[in-house]
Amino acid sequence: MKHTKVKDLLNSTKPVDDVLVKGWVRTFRNNQFIALNDGSTINNIQCVVDFENTPAETLKRITTGAALSIKGSLVPSQGAGQKYEVKVAELEILGDSDPEKFPMQPKKHSFEFLRENAHLRVRTNVFGAVMRVRSVLSFAIHQYFQERGFVYVNTPIITGSDAEGAGEMFQVTSLPVGNPPLNEEGKVDYREDFFGKETNLTVSGQLEAETYAMALGQVYTFGPTFRAENSNTSRHLAEFWMVEPEVAFNDLDANMDLAEDFIQYVIKYALERCEDDLKFLDQRLADEEKQKPANERSEMGLLEKLQFVLQNNFKRVSYTEAIDILKNSKSNKNRKFNYIIEEWGADLQSEHERYLVEKHFKSPVILFDYPAKIKAFYMRLNDDGKTVRAMDILFPGIGEIVGGSQREERLDVLQQKIADIGIDEKELWWYLDTRRFGTAVHSGFGLGFERLVLFVTGMTNIRDVIPFPRTPQNAEF
Amino acid sequence: MKHTKVKDLLNSTKPVDDVLVKGWVRTFRNNQFIALNDGSTINNIQCVVDFENTPAETLKRITTGAALSIKGSLVPSQGAGQKYEVKVAELEILGDSDPEKFPMQPKKHSFEFLRENAHLRVRTNVFGAVMRVRSVLSFAIHQYFQERGFVYVNTPIITGSDAEGAGEMFQVTSLPVGNPPLNEEGKVDYREDFFGKETNLTVSGQLEAETYAMALGQVYTFGPTFRAENSNTSRHLAEFWMVEPEVAFNDLDANMDLAEDFIQYVIKYALERCEDDLKFLDQRLADEEKQKPANERSEMGLLEKLQFVLQNNFKRVSYTEAIDILKNSKSNKNRKFNYIIEEWGADLQSEHERYLVEKHFKSPVILFDYPAKIKAFYMRLNDDGKTVRAMDILFPGIGEIVGGSQREERLDVLQQKIADIGIDEKELWWYLDTRRFGTAVHSGFGLGFERLVLFVTGMTNIRDVIPFPRTPQNAEF
Repeated sequence: MKHTKVKDLLNSTKPVDDVLVKGWVRTFRNNQFIALNDGSTINNIQCVVDFENTPAETLKRITTGAALSIKGSLVPSQGAGQKYEVKVAELEILGDSDPEKFPMQPKKHSFEFLRENAHLRVRTNVFGAVMRVRSVLSFAIHQYFQERGFVYVNTPIITGSDAEGAGEMFQVTSLPVGNPPLNEEGKVDYREDFFGKETNLTVSGQLEAETYAMALGQVYTFGPTFRAENSNTSRHLAEFWMVEPEVAFNDLDANMDLAEDFIQYVIKYALERCEDDLKFLDQRLADEEKQKPANERSEMGLLEKLQFVLQNNFKRVSYTEAIDILKNSKSNKNRKFNYIIEEWGADLQSEHERYLVEKHFKSPVILFDYPAKIKAFYMRLNDDGKTVRAMDILFPGIGEIVGGSQREERLDVLQQKIADIGIDEKELWWYLDTRRFGTAVHSGFGLGFERLVLFVTGMTNIRDVIPFPRTPQNAEF
Repeated sequence: MKHTKVKDLLNSTKPVDDVLVKGWVRTFRNNQFIALNDGSTINNIQCVVDFENTPAETLKRITTGAALSIKGSLVPSQGAGQKYEVKVAELEILGDSDPEKFPMQPKKHSFEFLRENAHLRVRTNVFGAVMRVRSVLSFAIHQYFQERGFVYVNTPIITGSDAEGAGEMFQVTSLPVGNPPLNEEGKVDYREDFFGKETNLTVSGQLEAETYAMALGQVYTFGPTFRAENSNTSRHLAEFWMVEPEVAFNDLDANMDLAEDFIQYVIKYALERCEDDLKFLDQRLADEEKQKPANERSEMGLLEKLQFVLQNNFKRVSYTEAIDILKNSKSNKNRKFNYIIEEWGADLQSEHERYLVEKHFKSPVILFDYPAKIKAFYMRLNDDGKTVRAMDILFPGIGEIVGGSQREERLDVLQQKIADIGIDEKELWWYLDTRRFGTAVHSGFGLGFERLVLFVTGMTNIRDVIPFPRTPQNAEF
């Protein structure tokens, strides 16, 4: 006999005589009511034990975390809170869970404690919900692009190119770190390393994705990327997943249109598919907000905020306009910003981005046409000679969720920019080939997937939206 | 005016007065007929130039690889081979492609040459087709699992656990190789490394996925995995993508059912969605086969082989039966095998797997119940005390495409097996927790994604089904 998922039992439209259900005990009350969960939904099925005819020895083993197999009948529930429940006929303990030892007791645990038990935290309501939403968002991303004819490209994780320039890299090696072979000059002889040269973990698949876009037209990556930066914040991970679409013939406007449509699509998809989980997370956030002083509380609840993003166009603002707004803001004049905006060309800090999004525009904002000096070499130079066709999408509470640009498609301009930052253009021979042969306008962006999950789930620490977070001094599991 | 994709133009059901199309020249004949491709399909749109009214200077620049923007009208084609063509009204060269320098000329290139130009090879018909099929297969995998309520889990790429035991690992470090800080004993002081300990690239997400399956019920991973093995073969990559489903309450039979259904689903999906690309690849393989001596040719064409897999159940054979078949085979008796099967317990070599699949059963084969000694520690021990509930799926031409097992769910048996192979069980404290708290029967498998792509595309070298292959001495791009 096949077992039925809890989700399907709860969605049943009629009683069923014989059902088999398997799952884990969340709670057991009055020696009678088992709340059983199997991960298929945040909701539990209530299983009612005939405790008078069940051995005391068995009842004692029905503890939080124990795995059970239950045969019985699905009947209309007597109690409130559920339409159906299982009247238990046979109950088998598959795996015990010693209540003295099981760390995930039915009480509130700190997120810090749960991070130390990342292998068990997914057995809680919060993390079960977050991880189901994460999974559905992943699928929404694939579906969005595939429906539109984009080709999914797996760009390399181990890269021999150190010219990506997006941040500090981890080295990958098969050499003994303390005792590598040396060359004639007494330096590490990377000819002996696995790949015959120094290699690192990728910080972005963009450059490789561009070579594919210039053949397949529309492509996207979705894979892990890495930063060896010692940032111990609630917004940074050393290992995180990034989505990077790249489209031939798209200019910056088309790129902004794509990014906005894409983000709205995936949020809408999650709202439709994760109703129960998002309702739960909405309530969780509301409860947490109540603990805060009134003036620190969010103006919007989680579901309200998600609807808001769907119903409002992202505000498009040039960097130059943004600098004007910031310079004239009270926060700047009263020197409330930690970094006072003095002049055009300043790099925006998180406090400035939050001011624009949360105080000034009160909506997601797309900033574009940044100063060339504070942006990457591959971004297309505007005719003014000082700004580039870059765009960042800023979200409330999250800050930058997308960074993108129209790419510099002109070979000579790109060569000059590469020379200016001191990279040997031979390092990028293959990248430059895309401009040598059939070059064209093209654009793309990167979306930090965990930041999207943070936004959609209302969690506040990025370590709580990825199964096993990698951060400085932490690679447990 | 928005441009229309070549695919949509070719699928048009009626003429269109004004169309804009952008893409790259594949060929230009008679100063008149441009075959334009934009990657949306393997097929080109024929664009007919009014050469008498086009400047010679422009005509000269219409070369293979050049990027063009063409305005014109979609009209019924005069020539054979296509229903519609574009009558060119305006033609703009977006990016030139010097025929003296562009490496991808319209002629047959060797796969070795194309690998050295992995950034351009996707501009050929073969690699365009392969990469579109790869992308569609990826999506089919996600869709299969998501439709069935599986949760996608991103297990860590950088791992602090060296107990996975699936092969040699790459080390990941932020320390200076050759000159790392040393501890009191003169050894590398990994407390100073980014994660405060020695870390590697994952060889499998299985152990972490198991912790999630024991909470969410049905999960799968799909991500990059790594082997630092010096295998320079047409079947091995140092970096490859793996799919690993893991299901609570599934025994080995259910695991085999899942694997078979899954593989048939994704192949069927590709056949439906990639008709043009697979027809092309079928023809390519047929042409290649013609070059071979008659006795070396495949019995089946590519499409035939894919249909065969859909229409036939995979043959399920125990290891013990397989050994009998092999021992009694002519190849064994005449000592044609390089490794003669002498007795039960022998590890099967690729030649034996191919014999079973290609000669004996002539169908995909699932071998199960292997000797414990030749399989991993986490596989469930059978009651005979000498075999484990392992299964491998063997495919014609590919060999092992799936390896899986029912997992050892009994804490004491698992602890003993860990001790027997000399791993300190403290290393696996979190893994053992799944057996301490609510353990249950569960199973899973790993599918090497590139081997699936090889099978479906009919390519013969695994380096030709991943965009930028990583192999010993090669991490270019």
